[in-house]
Amino acid sequence: MVAPLPDGIATPALVVDPEILDRNISRMAEASRDRGFALRPHAKSHKSAQIADRQLRAGARGLTVATISEAEAFVRAGVDDLFIAYPVWLDAGKAQRLRRLADDVALRVGVESAEGARRLGNAVGGSARPVEVLVEIDSGTQRTGVPPHAAGEVAKTAADVGLEVIGVFTFPGHGYGHDAQARVRAARDEERALDEAAQALRELRLDVRVVSGGSTPTAGQWQPGAVNELRPGVYVFNDATQLAIGTCQVEDLALVAAATVISVPAPDRFVLDVGSKVLGTDRSPWVTGHGYLPRFPEAAITGLWEHHAVVRLPEGARGPRLGDVLAVVPNHICTPVNLVDELLVVRDGEVVDRWPVTARGTNT
Amino acid sequence: MVAPLPDGIATPALVVDPEILDRNISRMAEASRDRGFALRPHAKSHKSAQIADRQLRAGARGLTVATISEAEAFVRAGVDDLFIAYPVWLDAGKAQRLRRLADDVALRVGVESAEGARRLGNAVGGSARPVEVLVEIDSGTQRTGVPPHAAGEVAKTAADVGLEVIGVFTFPGHGYGHDAQARVRAARDEERALDEAAQALRELRLDVRVVSGGSTPTAGQWQPGAVNELRPGVYVFNDATQLAIGTCQVEDLALVAAATVISVPAPDRFVLDVGSKVLGTDRSPWVTGHGYLPRFPEAAITGLWEHHAVVRLPEGARGPRLGDVLAVVPNHICTPVNLVDELLVVRDGEVVDRWPVTARGTNT
Repeated sequence: MVAPLPDGIATPALVVDPEILDRNISRMAEASRDRGFALRPHAKSHKSAQIADRQLRAGARGLTVATISEAEAFVRAGVDDLFIAYPVWLDAGKAQRLRRLADDVALRVGVESAEGARRLGNAVGGSARPVEVLVEIDSGTQRTGVPPHAAGEVAKTAADVGLEVIGVFTFPGHGYGHDAQARVRAARDEERALDEAAQALRELRLDVRVVSGGSTPTAGQWQPGAVNELRPGVYVFNDATQLAIGTCQVEDLALVAAATVISVPAPDRFVLDVGSKVLGTDRSPWVTGHGYLPRFPEAAITGLWEHHAVVRLPEGARGPRLGDVLAVVPNHICTPVNLVDELLVVRDGEVVDRWPVTARGTNT
Repeated sequence: MVAPLPDGIATPALVVDPEILDRNISRMAEASRDRGFALRPHAKSHKSAQIADRQLRAGARGLTVATISEAEAFVRAGVDDLFIAYPVWLDAGKAQRLRRLADDVALRVGVESAEGARRLGNAVGGSARPVEVLVEIDSGTQRTGVPPHAAGEVAKTAADVGLEVIGVFTFPGHGYGHDAQARVRAARDEERALDEAAQALRELRLDVRVVSGGSTPTAGQWQPGAVNELRPGVYVFNDATQLAIGTCQVEDLALVAAATVISVPAPDRFVLDVGSKVLGTDRSPWVTGHGYLPRFPEAAITGLWEHHAVVRLPEGARGPRLGDVLAVVPNHICTPVNLVDELLVVRDGEVVDRWPVTARGTNT
């Protein structure tokens, strides 16, 4: 946990502890190496060139991103190996932008429909470097992705239009569960779905080099052999959801929002100057409020407006004073990072650096 | 409703219909004029210099903002009369910034504690123009603000440190209710609380010039006489929450997110390329999902990730095709506007202008 918070910063602000950050990055890099996974972290969780650089230096193979503009932002920052893990739908403008990226860097793109594959083939056929394609599989989240048995059909269309199909990927969103068993089950679903889909591609005599899975919760649960690439995002910082489901401890929290007590209307209630425009309103079923307060672990943020967090204390608890600056751990870190221009890097209570949010708002 | 959507824009994008926008702006301006209220719209809902300009030209007295940096952004854009309707807590940095604003423009600031008033007095005592102060009252929302009977104490401290106390304000957040009766009750609470607080100030022989209330839902419910200033925000665009609680109609929706169908995994389900990083995750109890789809009014966005909206259709309904571009009305407009760099202004299916989100991310 970032402590102590620095004096004199304008709140609300997002504050990063670089030692915890580096420890989280190393730990995931080492675990991946030990278990034989290529690590390709999802950069949507930090959107920061400085943090991407730390991940790559620790041994990440490249970055994962969600959109073409997120890829463009990291290419401008010097990253040269990117996977857009998203079934990008290409109109004329996006086709041109994707083609330009493919000319510049090593690029992988997701597909999950025959029509999507055809558009991709039209866009990047003949680019300076071949774009590599991964078929997205639904392993139980019911978001995008084809069922494992349908992977072959999409892969065949992609190969027929001249794309280089190198594997399959999935996102096990249903792995966010309160108990470890749910995460194990999601990891098993993920392995089974990816394995069946990879088999379908091999039957087409495709060379399946990449079998890629998500996520911070399921990362530790895989059995050797089934999956060979890992795309976690949140692990760099962790957040109140990871804390609630038990995939991290308080000492692994590398980012907090610093907020000032602006009102103490009652002994059991106070108000912070941080709201949904910094914390976001994501709220999984496993958290107790709109963020976690390490100094008041029994308190809950019961009301959140754009610039107010109303905190309720348990009866008899002693609250903070007007003007106190407190740390709030966001529920879901991917949202707050996208709501600020910079992250304050704090060591021993001093702001030692400011990292711009390089890929802020890259939605298209 | 913005229709038709333009071809060839990169989705997701926020699209504004300037005719509906102007109609919403005029209607609120006229209603305020007719009923004798000064209109001071809350700019947090649009954060746009172009829209602020339209509100001021339609007769708004000035703007309301939530933070010092939001005020700074609008001052840079030429606005010269601002109310920071927030109990700003001034450390040395914020004190200096507020003082600079006070030297440049007509400035009003909220207070709700004696200590907050003292800090404000230290910061702006002797500024070129006097800063005017309004005491924040809690009219039932249980956020910030003192009970009406305690307004005098705060006002007295403020006056004693040399601030010019000109009135009282409140935000009736509990006025967001499904039935019109809840809104009427919240408006009555608001009037009663403001009236009692104003009376407390008058007993101190303060000249109560401003009695200021919120909000798009309660704006139409006041009785003449009690309140003399109105600070609605959302009315410029409206949103799915206002539609659900009945304070606007579909034809009053001036902003939608344009999104592309990227996946049709089942006959009753499709996926759009818009997610929480454009729509936000605000979800009041009155809406049925994460946004409203005018082309599929019976559908619901049942799943929202950062870049995916999963839409469920009722049984037997005919869904869209891959690549179709659909309009999504956000649940709460103040969040999406803060998540993009620009608003596309669309007339008759053509992008006729692009308005930057002038005050994006101004949180401090």
